[in-house]
Amino acid sequence: MLAEMLENLKKKAPLVHSITNYVTVNDCANIILAFGASPIMADDEAEVEEITSVCGALNINIGTLNRRTIPSMFLAGKKANALSRPVVLDPVGAGASRLRTDTALRLAAELKLAAIRGNISEIKALALGGGTTKGVDADVADAVTEDSLAAAADFARRFSEKTGAVIAITGAIDIVAGSKKVYIIRNGHPAMSKVTGTGCMLSAMTAACLAANPDRPLEAAAAAVAAMGLCGETAYSRLEDGEGNSAYRSRIIDAVYNLTPEMLESGARYEIM
Amino acid sequence: MLAEMLENLKKKAPLVHSITNYVTVNDCANIILAFGASPIMADDEAEVEEITSVCGALNINIGTLNRRTIPSMFLAGKKANALSRPVVLDPVGAGASRLRTDTALRLAAELKLAAIRGNISEIKALALGGGTTKGVDADVADAVTEDSLAAAADFARRFSEKTGAVIAITGAIDIVAGSKKVYIIRNGHPAMSKVTGTGCMLSAMTAACLAANPDRPLEAAAAAVAAMGLCGETAYSRLEDGEGNSAYRSRIIDAVYNLTPEMLESGARYEIM
Amino acid sequence: MLAEMLENLKKKAPLVHSITNYVTVNDCANIILAFGASPIMADDEAEVEEITSVCGALNINIGTLNRRTIPSMFLAGKKANALSRPVVLDPVGAGASRLRTDTALRLAAELKLAAIRGNISEIKALALGGGTTKGVDADVADAVTEDSLAAAADFARRFSEKTGAVIAITGAIDIVAGSKKVYIIRNGHPAMSKVTGTGCMLSAMTAACLAANPDRPLEAAAAAVAAMGLCGETAYSRLEDGEGNSAYRSRIIDAVYNLTPEMLESGARYEIM
Repeated sequence: MLAEMLENLKKKAPLVHSITNYVTVNDCANIILAFGASPIMADDEAEVEEITSVCGALNINIGTLNRRTIPSMFLAGKKANALSRPVVLDPVGAGASRLRTDTALRLAAELKLAAIRGNISEIKALALGGGTTKGVDADVADAVTEDSLAAAADFARRFSEKTGAVIAITGAIDIVAGSKKVYIIRNGHPAMSKVTGTGCMLSAMTAACLAANPDRPLEAAAAAVAAMGLCGETAYSRLEDGEGNSAYRSRIIDAVYNLTPEMLESGARYEIM
Repeated sequence: MLAEMLENLKKKAPLVHSITNYVTVNDCANIILAFGASPIMADDEAEVEEITSVCGALNINIGTLNRRTIPSMFLAGKKANALSRPVVLDPVGAGASRLRTDTALRLAAELKLAAIRGNISEIKALALGGGTTKGVDADVADAVTEDSLAAAADFARRFSEKTGAVIAITGAIDIVAGSKKVYIIRNGHPAMSKVTGTGCMLSAMTAACLAANPDRPLEAAAAAVAAMGLCGETAYSRLEDGEGNSAYRSRIIDAVYNLTPEMLESGARYEIM
Repeated sequence: MLAEMLENLKKKAPLVHSITNYVTVNDCANIILAFGASPIMADDEAEVEEITSVCGALNINIGTLNRRTIPSMFLAGKKANALSRPVVLDPVGAGASRLRTDTALRLAAELKLAAIRGNISEIKALALGGGTTKGVDADVADAVTEDSLAAAADFARRFSEKTGAVIAITGAIDIVAGSKKVYIIRNGHPAMSKVTGTGCMLSAMTAACLAANPDRPLEAAAAAVAAMGLCGETAYSRLEDGEGNSAYRSRIIDAVYNLTPEMLESGARYEIM
């Protein structure tokens, strides 16, 4: 099933529009190419609607958020919504500053998002409205472990129900939740956290996969998450003596480049809740 | 002859000012160093004229174009013109949005450009004035193949005649045209299209080569184009099992770093029309 | 002694806020991770104070300086000062444009800097107030060699005395000066100058090391400088046939990733003046 998602991606090779941060933007562009799609980065208000119009999906990432590009995110997002193109939000650093939390909340409120991908803190910041809403959700632990997995999966499922977006929470164990069905994915390697931008890259891949599979956002997001985790494992196993996080970064992108639908199907380790 | 261009570059090690996009800027800086020149990136209106003044050439790239840096491009370009320093334009995405097409057209109209480098779509968007002017040029095919080569070369030659700039159209076959003479260059590898920024990097190299050979822009641009293509081949041949577009990117820059004038002369495959 | 600095860094794993240029920002983020700290990049006025507040140090780098981020540098710097968090300034290109020189001078005047790291030209531009103040300092040579070393070290020591900041001047020979004590560090490799951003990366590492050792800024900065130089040597020795500046860049970050306190202690070559 995940294989089919990647097959569609390779076949359609969609164009993906990213409005993203300047820290990891090059890696996002290269991993979109590696995955089988084509990247366009454009962030000026004067052109984002046109660029979104020729793309299969929009990837909004709020790292290095600034006042110049925030209006662009809304313009592009609304255009994508009008054209029924999937919009993916990566709320980088939501919870770390009022600007990020508020912008992420506004994006989630004003746009129809197809998927939201972040770590547990970012997703919680978004779900809890910047900490102002307290409730059962506040009990979700700050790291997803075997012990907290069931609660986190339920939290993600309910947040998906509320927003209509697929919720991907990545960490030691990955959760990809629709409103009725949740994928628990156990690929990946802890060293991925030592490479800047693995989350941003995954969000870009998610947008690419949704562009090729717009009617199956849950499976498409699960395929992207499993692909990234699996490639993190493959890349780690290929590290040579003396190599570190820079070689690892490059080897992760290369593993995505060489990933086939069959490799994804056989290498993905997941269960459905 | 191409060897001499690279010899001059290595000897003079010129400083090159780039106003470029944030996606591939690091690769542009490293490939300028690899080629034998020195990079400076500066894009604020308050300093671009001063920075251009101490540089041997200016490289303007309109990827991630935005309202803050557009005026900087004109200021720097006019300063470079006043000082008779070569200006290279890379019209990234011209034709994809009105902002890009119009800005590229205005840059071409208001600045004296020494060279313009893009793919066939971008150069056509520029030559055809954003699609509003229809004519014989519109018949130029959207990919340069053996069948369409003669027409594309003639189109490039006439566009060079009209603009006074060397026109470099890169793709499966590369065309580098002056108003009277056209280089057809057959180096390169298809996998280069899977690395983001090979075009941007080539434009940066072109600016570097023109900075060192300001009186021979056609030969300098041809040398840069042949160098990039040849290094794309060398790098591809060095790829190891399991490597992909990220390793390829790095190996291309490394091949440029190790390219000697003799290697360029013997490895370049071109004819002159 | 240097070992202890790195041990503290690995133990505390501080968060480091960088307001930096878009050319080398990805390398800065990855080398901060490699060194044992965590990076956050944020440059909008609306959030920099909040981000600085949760970080152990602030790294200000004026490459690709622009009007949007200059006020952010002051806001973040003042917040860091108020919270007694170390602030590191990298005056990239000071002396090359009025904007850079003036901004660096204003930052040095209005903020309490824990360390300033640059090459000799940049530090001179800063010390001499943009060339308007002539005096004995103007006699400091433009490259630090064995012949000019004593004068340069004395210049750095006096500039440290004047500013209260540790002054790190890097080049063929590195100088790290407090007001009373100067480290002369002889690690490094000339090929490091062919990799864009080795200076930026070192400034980021310096901020990380100061975050973990806020009460010993001189030793912390010396440890970062020696670490970068040593890793430049290690990485160079690991280069394979056909590799160039791109592989070297990656191998430098990887060497930092694999650097232990013991390796730093035994590999650092320095004397104290």
